[in-house]
Amino acid sequence: MNGDKTVTACALIIGNEVLSGRTADANLNWLATQLTEDGITLKEARVIPDVVDVIVDTVNECRAKFDYVFTTGGIGPTHDDITASCVARAFGVEIERNPEAVALLESFISKDRLNEARLKMADIPAGAELIGNPVSKAPGFKMENVYVMAGVPSIMRAMFDGFRHTLTGGPKVQSISVATMLAEGTVASGLSDIQDRHPKVDVGSYPYFRDGKFGVSLVCRSSDVADLETTAEEVRALIRSLGGVPLDEDLANDNSSDKFDTGD
Amino acid sequence: MNGDKTVTACALIIGNEVLSGRTADANLNWLATQLTEDGITLKEARVIPDVVDVIVDTVNECRAKFDYVFTTGGIGPTHDDITASCVARAFGVEIERNPEAVALLESFISKDRLNEARLKMADIPAGAELIGNPVSKAPGFKMENVYVMAGVPSIMRAMFDGFRHTLTGGPKVQSISVATMLAEGTVASGLSDIQDRHPKVDVGSYPYFRDGKFGVSLVCRSSDVADLETTAEEVRALIRSLGGVPLDEDLANDNSSDKFDTGD
Repeated sequence: MNGDKTVTACALIIGNEVLSGRTADANLNWLATQLTEDGITLKEARVIPDVVDVIVDTVNECRAKFDYVFTTGGIGPTHDDITASCVARAFGVEIERNPEAVALLESFISKDRLNEARLKMADIPAGAELIGNPVSKAPGFKMENVYVMAGVPSIMRAMFDGFRHTLTGGPKVQSISVATMLAEGTVASGLSDIQDRHPKVDVGSYPYFRDGKFGVSLVCRSSDVADLETTAEEVRALIRSLGGVPLDEDLANDNSSDKFDTGD
Repeated sequence: MNGDKTVTACALIIGNEVLSGRTADANLNWLATQLTEDGITLKEARVIPDVVDVIVDTVNECRAKFDYVFTTGGIGPTHDDITASCVARAFGVEIERNPEAVALLESFISKDRLNEARLKMADIPAGAELIGNPVSKAPGFKMENVYVMAGVPSIMRAMFDGFRHTLTGGPKVQSISVATMLAEGTVASGLSDIQDRHPKVDVGSYPYFRDGKFGVSLVCRSSDVADLETTAEEVRALIRSLGGVPLDEDLANDNSSDKFDTGD
């Protein structure tokens, strides 16, 4: 916990296959959820292609702009795995075969199979610290505030879980979500007044269609619990004043859609 | 079809709820797939928060850099729906109540319910063209090369399908995908040679774990069909030369993970 300062992060999803539509990214939502739990505010995410200049420029822009940068993808053995060399270039350092990484690969891959392509997975920017990979050994790495992880979800998660305790979060943002069957357009005006009265609380409106019914989740988010609870109580009162029934809901990811006005 | 020129696009997913992890984006993969089919290359995607300066700056950076910009999210009736006013600011134009948009809302929402909040959905940047919304009427809009759509997946898709025929794609990128049970590290060296021989074909390597078995999909992508077929045949020959069996597969999105080396 880093005092009152907001701690920011950016996620870089690296891979042509996500941009072509071949693969649906399965990392961003998980990562966003973990960071929120740890008091780290994900300010932006970018999906970028396996193109040297784009990766180098994006890493340099984002590492200057955010407290943490987390990358996924592009650290395997094939020619299109260029994340490590691009991060080295972004930092202006050499990429070198890391003995510790070689030892990890040797512990997992028999000697006759440890060819040059697989050894490439031990090429790490000079000065970087390795990030452990309990699944398939080939490590990620951390270079200053940039954390380079695999794109395979199970490996990315294991890597993140391994270094997670070393991250320094800010005040943890808490949430209270109140659902109603009233339409967005019905609550909008009162909701805006509530937001104006509580500028330090982020009041969001997320319509959904669930079990054959339309509704809207009104989500209050803040690191100030007292302000948060007052705001949520005002949201409940607003719903009641409009003839609705406020329903507190837990904030488990419901994959509901974003903005919807039924005109109801 | 725009001659031989690559036509580029950027997707902007606008919404705090995606960055907090509350909502998993369900638009990017669909949009990427459609654009690829239409010969438009999605070069980048960004998830950005409901923050005026960030939206304005990102829209301006991306509309200068890419042929098309597609935004999703933030065009509903509540105070946190600020995409339209931000796009107006990015273009340096006023936002104004659009009579055509008002008529659309009036056709769908009864007069006693058409309050000021809902009418806000008819506030459109001056000079923009409306994008139809067959689901709930509240329109999106197009301002030069920027297409502003709803965040709700069903509405976003309906909006895109409505203007899709007006987009001008470049040469359509075709794909051939060949799967093998060989490991990535085994095919990597030969695959790199194939990529070097065919610089205009994008050769990607995507490991997967399916039906209890590891394998890798080797995907060749190019708008030059002859070059593509030669490359794919070389990939099949490489697999055979390493003792594997090449299996042609169709390119339906399999949600498989990205990079994986089993060390097998």
